[in-house]
Amino acid sequence: MASSLRVLGIDPGLTRCGIGVVDVDRTRRATLVHVGVVRTPTDADLSTRLAAVAAGIRAVIEEHHPDAVAVERVFAQHNVQTVMGTAQASGVALLIAAEAGLPAATHTPSEVKAAVTGYGSADKRQVQSMIARILQLDAPPQPADAADALAIALCHAWRGARPHRRRPVR
Amino acid sequence: MASSLRVLGIDPGLTRCGIGVVDVDRTRRATLVHVGVVRTPTDADLSTRLAAVAAGIRAVIEEHHPDAVAVERVFAQHNVQTVMGTAQASGVALLIAAEAGLPAATHTPSEVKAAVTGYGSADKRQVQSMIARILQLDAPPQPADAADALAIALCHAWRGARPHRRRPVR
Repeated sequence: MASSLRVLGIDPGLTRCGIGVVDVDRTRRATLVHVGVVRTPTDADLSTRLAAVAAGIRAVIEEHHPDAVAVERVFAQHNVQTVMGTAQASGVALLIAAEAGLPAATHTPSEVKAAVTGYGSADKRQVQSMIARILQLDAPPQPADAADALAIALCHAWRGARPHRRRPVR
Repeated sequence: MASSLRVLGIDPGLTRCGIGVVDVDRTRRATLVHVGVVRTPTDADLSTRLAAVAAGIRAVIEEHHPDAVAVERVFAQHNVQTVMGTAQASGVALLIAAEAGLPAATHTPSEVKAAVTGYGSADKRQVQSMIARILQLDAPPQPADAADALAIALCHAWRGARPHRRRPVR
Protein backbone atom coordinates (compact mmCIF):
# COMPACT_ATOMS: atom_id res chain seq x y z
CA MET A 1 0.00 0.00 0.00
CA ALA A 2 3.04 2.26 0.06
CA SER A 3 2.19 3.75 -3.31
CA SER A 4 -1.40 4.55 -2.40
CA LEU A 5 -2.81 7.56 -0.63
CA ARG A 6 -5.21 7.07 2.27
CA VAL A 7 -7.62 9.96 2.63
CA LEU A 8 -10.08 10.64 5.43
CA GLY A 9 -13.12 12.53 4.12
CA ILE A 10 -15.48 14.34 6.45
CA ASP A 11 -18.97 15.65 5.68
CA PRO A 12 -19.30 17.86 8.74
CA GLY A 13 -22.50 18.01 10.74
CA LEU A 14 -23.85 17.86 14.26
CA THR A 15 -26.86 15.59 13.79
CA ARG A 16 -24.95 13.36 11.36
CA CYS A 17 -21.24 13.71 10.58
CA GLY A 18 -20.18 11.48 7.70
CA ILE A 19 -16.70 9.94 7.99
CA GLY A 20 -15.14 7.95 5.17
CA VAL A 21 -11.67 6.58 4.43
CA VAL A 22 -10.46 5.46 1.00
CA ASP A 23 -7.19 4.24 -0.45
CA VAL A 24 -6.40 5.57 -3.92
CA ASP A 25 -3.51 4.07 -5.84
CA ARG A 26 -1.37 5.61 -8.56
CA THR A 27 -3.74 4.38 -11.26
CA ARG A 28 -6.50 6.33 -9.46
CA ARG A 29 -8.20 3.10 -8.44
CA ALA A 30 -10.00 3.49 -5.12
CA THR A 31 -10.88 1.03 -2.39
CA LEU A 32 -13.09 1.47 0.65
CA VAL A 33 -11.31 1.39 4.00
CA HIS A 34 -13.99 2.70 6.36
CA VAL A 35 -17.33 4.45 6.28
CA GLY A 36 -19.52 5.58 9.12
CA VAL A 37 -21.60 8.35 10.60
CA VAL A 38 -21.30 10.01 13.99
CA ARG A 39 -24.76 10.96 15.27
CA THR A 40 -25.39 13.28 18.18
CA PRO A 41 -28.77 13.95 19.78
CA THR A 42 -30.37 17.28 18.94
CA ASP A 43 -31.31 17.84 22.59
CA ALA A 44 -27.75 17.48 23.87
CA ASP A 45 -25.60 20.45 24.77
CA LEU A 46 -23.74 21.96 21.80
CA SER A 47 -20.29 21.50 23.35
CA THR A 48 -21.09 17.87 24.19
CA ARG A 49 -22.21 17.26 20.61
CA LEU A 50 -18.98 18.74 19.26
CA ALA A 51 -16.98 16.56 21.66
CA ALA A 52 -18.80 13.46 20.36
CA VAL A 53 -18.00 14.45 16.76
CA ALA A 54 -14.36 15.00 17.75
CA ALA A 55 -14.15 11.61 19.48
CA GLY A 56 -15.60 9.88 16.41
CA ILE A 57 -13.09 11.49 14.06
CA ARG A 58 -10.14 10.82 16.37
CA ALA A 59 -11.13 7.14 16.68
CA VAL A 60 -11.10 6.74 12.88
CA ILE A 61 -7.70 8.47 12.59
CA GLU A 62 -6.26 6.22 15.30
CA GLU A 63 -7.63 3.08 13.67
CA HIS A 64 -6.92 3.80 10.01
CA HIS A 65 -3.95 6.22 9.98
CA PRO A 66 -4.91 8.38 6.99
CA ASP A 67 -2.29 10.42 5.12
CA ALA A 68 -4.53 13.44 4.63
CA VAL A 69 -7.86 14.87 5.72
CA ALA A 70 -10.44 16.51 3.43
CA VAL A 71 -13.45 18.39 4.79
CA GLU A 72 -16.42 19.71 2.82
CA ARG A 73 -16.41 23.49 2.78
CA VAL A 74 -19.39 25.12 4.44
CA PHE A 75 -21.30 27.99 2.91
CA ALA A 76 -23.76 30.26 4.68
CA GLN A 77 -26.23 30.35 1.84
CA HIS A 78 -29.30 28.68 3.22
CA ASN A 79 -30.67 27.43 6.52
CA VAL A 80 -28.67 29.70 8.78
CA GLN A 81 -29.35 27.73 11.96
CA THR A 82 -28.10 24.43 10.54
CA VAL A 83 -25.11 25.98 8.82
CA MET A 84 -23.70 27.34 12.07
CA GLY A 85 -23.58 23.85 13.60
CA THR A 86 -22.08 22.51 10.39
CA ALA A 87 -19.41 25.20 10.44
CA GLN A 88 -18.63 24.45 14.08
CA ALA A 89 -18.30 20.74 13.31
CA SER A 90 -16.02 21.53 10.35
CA GLY A 91 -13.84 23.65 12.63
CA VAL A 92 -13.55 20.71 15.01
CA ALA A 93 -12.63 18.37 12.11
CA LEU A 94 -9.92 20.73 10.85
CA LEU A 95 -8.55 21.19 14.38
CA ILE A 96 -8.29 17.43 14.88
CA ALA A 97 -6.44 17.04 11.58
CA ALA A 98 -3.91 19.70 12.59
CA GLU A 99 -3.46 18.19 16.04
CA ALA A 100 -2.90 14.76 14.47
CA GLY A 101 -0.19 16.29 12.28
CA LEU A 102 -2.17 15.62 9.11
CA PRO A 103 -2.48 18.01 6.16
CA ALA A 104 -6.07 19.21 5.82
CA ALA A 105 -7.90 20.69 2.87
CA THR A 106 -11.44 21.79 2.14
CA HIS A 107 -13.40 21.21 -1.07
CA THR A 108 -16.65 22.81 -2.14
CA PRO A 109 -19.76 20.66 -2.61
CA SER A 110 -19.68 21.29 -6.37
CA GLU A 111 -16.01 20.29 -6.62
CA VAL A 112 -16.87 17.07 -4.80
CA LYS A 113 -19.90 16.31 -6.97
CA ALA A 114 -17.98 17.07 -10.17
CA ALA A 115 -15.09 14.83 -9.09
CA VAL A 116 -17.25 11.76 -8.55
CA THR A 117 -20.11 12.23 -11.04
CA GLY A 118 -18.60 14.61 -13.60
CA TYR A 119 -21.43 17.01 -12.83
CA GLY A 120 -21.20 19.75 -10.19
CA SER A 121 -24.95 19.89 -9.61
CA ALA A 122 -25.48 16.14 -9.14
CA ASP A 123 -28.09 15.20 -6.55
CA LYS A 124 -27.51 13.05 -3.48
CA ARG A 125 -28.75 9.87 -5.16
CA GLN A 126 -26.38 10.30 -8.11
CA VAL A 127 -23.46 10.77 -5.72
CA GLN A 128 -24.48 7.71 -3.72
CA SER A 129 -24.77 5.45 -6.77
CA MET A 130 -21.48 6.66 -8.27
CA ILE A 131 -19.71 6.03 -4.96
CA ALA A 132 -21.08 2.47 -4.96
CA ARG A 133 -19.81 1.94 -8.52
CA ILE A 134 -16.39 3.49 -7.92
CA LEU A 135 -15.76 1.53 -4.73
CA GLN A 136 -17.46 -1.64 -6.06
CA LEU A 137 -19.95 -1.78 -3.21
CA ASP A 138 -23.04 -3.97 -3.32
CA ALA A 139 -25.29 -1.05 -2.38
CA PRO A 140 -25.03 2.74 -2.15
CA PRO A 141 -23.65 3.86 1.22
CA GLN A 142 -26.39 5.02 3.58
CA PRO A 143 -27.15 7.63 4.77
CA ALA A 144 -26.21 10.25 2.19
CA ASP A 145 -23.75 11.81 4.66
CA ALA A 146 -21.70 8.60 4.58
CA ALA A 147 -21.57 8.62 0.78
CA ASP A 148 -20.69 12.32 0.82
CA ALA A 149 -17.76 11.68 3.15
CA LEU A 150 -16.39 9.07 0.73
CA ALA A 151 -16.97 11.46 -2.19
CA ILE A 152 -14.99 14.18 -0.40
CA ALA A 153 -12.11 11.76 0.19
CA LEU A 154 -12.12 10.64 -3.47
CA CYS A 155 -12.33 14.23 -4.68
CA HIS A 156 -9.28 15.09 -2.61
CA ALA A 157 -7.25 12.13 -3.85
CA TRP A 158 -8.19 12.67 -7.49
CA ARG A 159 -7.65 16.41 -7.53
CA GLY A 160 -3.94 15.70 -7.21
CA ALA A 161 -3.77 15.34 -3.46
CA ARG A 162 -2.16 18.67 -3.03
CA PRO A 163 -3.02 19.30 0.59
CA HIS A 164 -2.67 22.89 1.68
CA ARG A 165 0.78 23.06 3.22
CA ARG A 166 0.47 23.91 6.83
CA ARG A 167 2.71 26.83 7.64
CA PRO A 168 3.94 27.53 11.14
CA VAL A 169 1.91 30.12 12.97
CA ARG A 170 3.95 33.22 13.61
CA MET B 1 -12.39 32.77 46.50
CA ALA B 2 -14.56 29.75 47.22
CA SER B 3 -17.73 31.83 47.00
CA SER B 4 -16.87 33.41 43.66
CA LEU B 5 -17.38 32.10 40.17
CA ARG B 6 -14.51 32.18 37.69
CA VAL B 7 -15.73 32.50 34.12
CA LEU B 8 -13.71 32.21 30.92
CA GLY B 9 -15.26 34.35 28.19
CA ILE B 10 -14.38 33.85 24.54
CA ASP B 11 -15.04 36.19 21.63
CA PRO B 12 -14.37 33.67 18.86
CA GLY B 13 -12.38 34.61 15.79
CA LEU B 14 -9.54 33.44 13.59
CA THR B 15 -7.67 36.69 13.07
CA ARG B 16 -8.24 37.74 16.67
CA CYS B 17 -9.84 35.53 19.33
CA GLY B 18 -10.51 37.43 22.55
CA ILE B 19 -10.02 35.48 25.78
CA GLY B 20 -10.93 36.91 29.17
CA VAL B 21 -11.27 35.51 32.68
CA VAL B 22 -13.13 37.20 35.53
CA ASP B 23 -14.02 36.32 39.09
CA VAL B 24 -17.50 37.37 40.17
CA ASP B 25 -18.44 37.13 43.83
CA ARG B 26 -21.85 36.74 45.41
CA THR B 27 -22.34 40.48 45.57
CA ARG B 28 -21.84 40.50 41.78
CA ARG B 29 -18.54 42.32 42.18
CA ALA B 30 -16.12 41.39 39.41
CA THR B 31 -12.35 41.31 39.24
CA LEU B 32 -10.05 40.81 36.28
CA VAL B 33 -8.06 37.57 36.26
CA HIS B 34 -6.75 37.46 32.71
CA VAL B 35 -7.28 39.12 29.38
CA GLY B 36 -5.61 38.43 26.05
CA VAL B 37 -6.05 37.88 22.36
CA VAL B 38 -4.90 34.96 20.23
CA ARG B 39 -3.92 36.19 16.77
CA THR B 40 -3.35 33.93 13.78
CA PRO B 41 -1.94 35.02 10.42
CA THR B 42 -4.49 35.32 7.61
CA ASP B 43 -2.14 33.53 5.21
CA ALA B 44 -1.79 30.44 7.39
CA ASP B 45 -3.68 27.23 6.71
CA LEU B 46 -7.17 27.15 8.24
CA SER B 47 -6.52 24.02 10.32
CA THR B 48 -3.28 25.49 11.64
CA ARG B 49 -5.11 28.68 12.62
CA LEU B 50 -7.76 26.70 14.49
CA ALA B 51 -5.03 24.72 16.27
CA ALA B 52 -3.41 27.99 17.40
CA VAL B 53 -6.75 29.24 18.74
CA ALA B 54 -7.24 25.91 20.54
CA ALA B 55 -3.76 26.07 22.08
CA GLY B 56 -4.39 29.61 23.31
CA ILE B 57 -7.67 28.69 24.98
CA ARG B 58 -6.25 25.52 26.54
CA ALA B 59 -3.30 27.46 27.98
CA VAL B 60 -5.65 29.90 29.71
CA ILE B 61 -7.78 27.06 31.12
CA GLU B 62 -4.67 25.31 32.45
CA GLU B 63 -3.33 28.48 34.04
CA HIS B 64 -6.52 29.93 35.50
CA HIS B 65 -8.86 26.96 36.09
CA PRO B 66 -12.21 28.59 35.27
CA ASP B 67 -15.47 27.11 36.58
CA ALA B 68 -17.39 27.76 33.38
CA VAL B 69 -16.90 28.84 29.77
CA ALA B 70 -19.04 31.34 27.88
CA VAL B 71 -18.75 31.86 24.13
CA GLU B 72 -20.35 34.56 22.02
CA ARG B 73 -23.01 33.10 19.75
CA VAL B 74 -22.31 33.50 16.05
CA PHE B 75 -24.92 34.59 13.55
CA ALA B 76 -24.71 34.30 9.78
CA GLN B 77 -26.22 37.69 9.11
CA HIS B 78 -23.44 39.64 7.48
CA ASN B 79 -19.99 39.07 6.03
CA VAL B 80 -20.42 35.41 5.17
CA GLN B 81 -16.71 34.72 4.68
CA THR B 82 -15.69 36.05 8.09
CA VAL B 83 -18.61 34.44 9.86
CA MET B 84 -17.62 30.94 8.77
CA GLY B 85 -14.17 31.29 10.37
CA THR B 86 -15.81 32.76 13.46
CA ALA B 87 -18.22 29.82 13.66
CA GLN B 88 -15.35 27.35 13.25
CA ALA B 89 -13.40 29.08 16.04
CA SER B 90 -16.49 29.00 18.27
CA GLY B 91 -16.85 25.26 17.61
CA VAL B 92 -13.25 24.78 18.68
CA ALA B 93 -13.84 26.84 21.85
CA LEU B 94 -16.93 24.80 22.79
CA LEU B 95 -15.10 21.53 22.10
CA ILE B 96 -12.22 22.53 24.37
CA ALA B 97 -14.64 23.42 27.17
CA ALA B 98 -16.33 20.02 26.91
CA GLU B 99 -13.00 18.20 26.81
CA ALA B 100 -11.85 20.12 29.89
CA GLY B 101 -15.00 18.99 31.68
CA LEU B 102 -16.32 22.55 31.94
CA PRO B 103 -19.92 23.63 31.42
CA ALA B 104 -20.21 25.83 28.35
CA ALA B 105 -22.86 28.29 27.30
CA THR B 106 -23.35 30.74 24.47
CA HIS B 107 -24.75 34.26 24.70
CA THR B 108 -25.87 36.53 21.91
CA PRO B 109 -24.06 39.81 21.24
CA SER B 110 -27.11 41.79 22.35
CA GLU B 111 -27.40 39.81 25.60
CA VAL B 112 -23.74 40.56 26.27
CA LYS B 113 -24.05 44.27 25.48
CA ALA B 114 -27.22 44.59 27.55
CA ALA B 115 -25.57 42.84 30.50
CA VAL B 116 -22.60 45.22 30.69
CA THR B 117 -24.02 48.51 29.37
CA GLY B 118 -27.75 48.09 29.96
CA TYR B 119 -28.25 48.60 26.23
CA GLY B 120 -28.35 45.75 23.69
CA SER B 121 -27.22 47.93 20.81
CA ALA B 122 -24.21 49.49 22.53
CA ASP B 123 -21.19 50.09 20.31
CA LYS B 124 -17.71 48.67 20.83
CA ARG B 125 -16.44 51.79 22.56
CA GLN B 126 -19.28 51.79 25.07
CA VAL B 127 -18.60 48.13 25.90
CA GLN B 128 -14.88 48.84 26.29
CA SER B 129 -15.39 51.79 28.63
CA MET B 130 -17.99 49.95 30.75
CA ILE B 131 -15.63 46.97 31.08
CA ALA B 132 -12.90 49.33 32.29
CA ARG B 133 -15.27 50.83 34.89
CA ILE B 134 -16.67 47.49 36.07
CA LEU B 135 -13.24 45.90 36.47
CA GLN B 136 -11.62 49.13 37.74
CA LEU B 137 -9.01 49.16 35.00
CA ASP B 138 -6.90 52.22 34.23
CA ALA B 139 -7.76 52.04 30.54
CA PRO B 140 -10.28 50.22 28.33
CA PRO B 141 -9.01 46.79 27.28
CA GLN B 142 -7.56 46.77 23.77
CA PRO B 143 -8.37 45.52 21.18
CA ALA B 144 -12.18 45.43 21.25
CA ASP B 145 -12.07 41.60 21.07
CA ALA B 146 -10.36 41.52 24.47
CA ALA B 147 -13.05 43.73 26.01
CA ASP B 148 -15.75 41.64 24.34
CA ALA B 149 -14.34 38.45 25.86
CA LEU B 150 -14.52 40.02 29.33
CA ALA B 151 -18.05 41.26 28.60
CA ILE B 152 -19.12 37.72 27.63
CA ALA B 153 -17.66 36.34 30.86
CA LEU B 154 -19.42 39.01 32.95
CA CYS B 155 -22.69 38.48 31.09
CA HIS B 156 -22.51 34.79 31.88
CA ALA B 157 -21.78 35.31 35.57
CA TRP B 158 -24.46 37.97 35.99
CA ARG B 159 -27.19 36.14 34.11
CA GLY B 160 -27.31 33.70 37.01
CA ALA B 161 -24.47 31.47 35.94
CA ARG B 162 -26.80 28.75 34.83
CA PRO B 163 -24.51 26.91 32.45
CA HIS B 164 -26.29 24.57 30.08
CA ARG B 165 -26.12 21.22 31.81
CA ARG B 166 -24.13 18.86 29.68
CA ARG B 167 -26.07 15.70 29.15
CA PRO B 168 -24.40 12.44 28.24
CA VAL B 169 -24.46 11.69 24.54
CA ARG B 170 -26.64 8.69 23.82
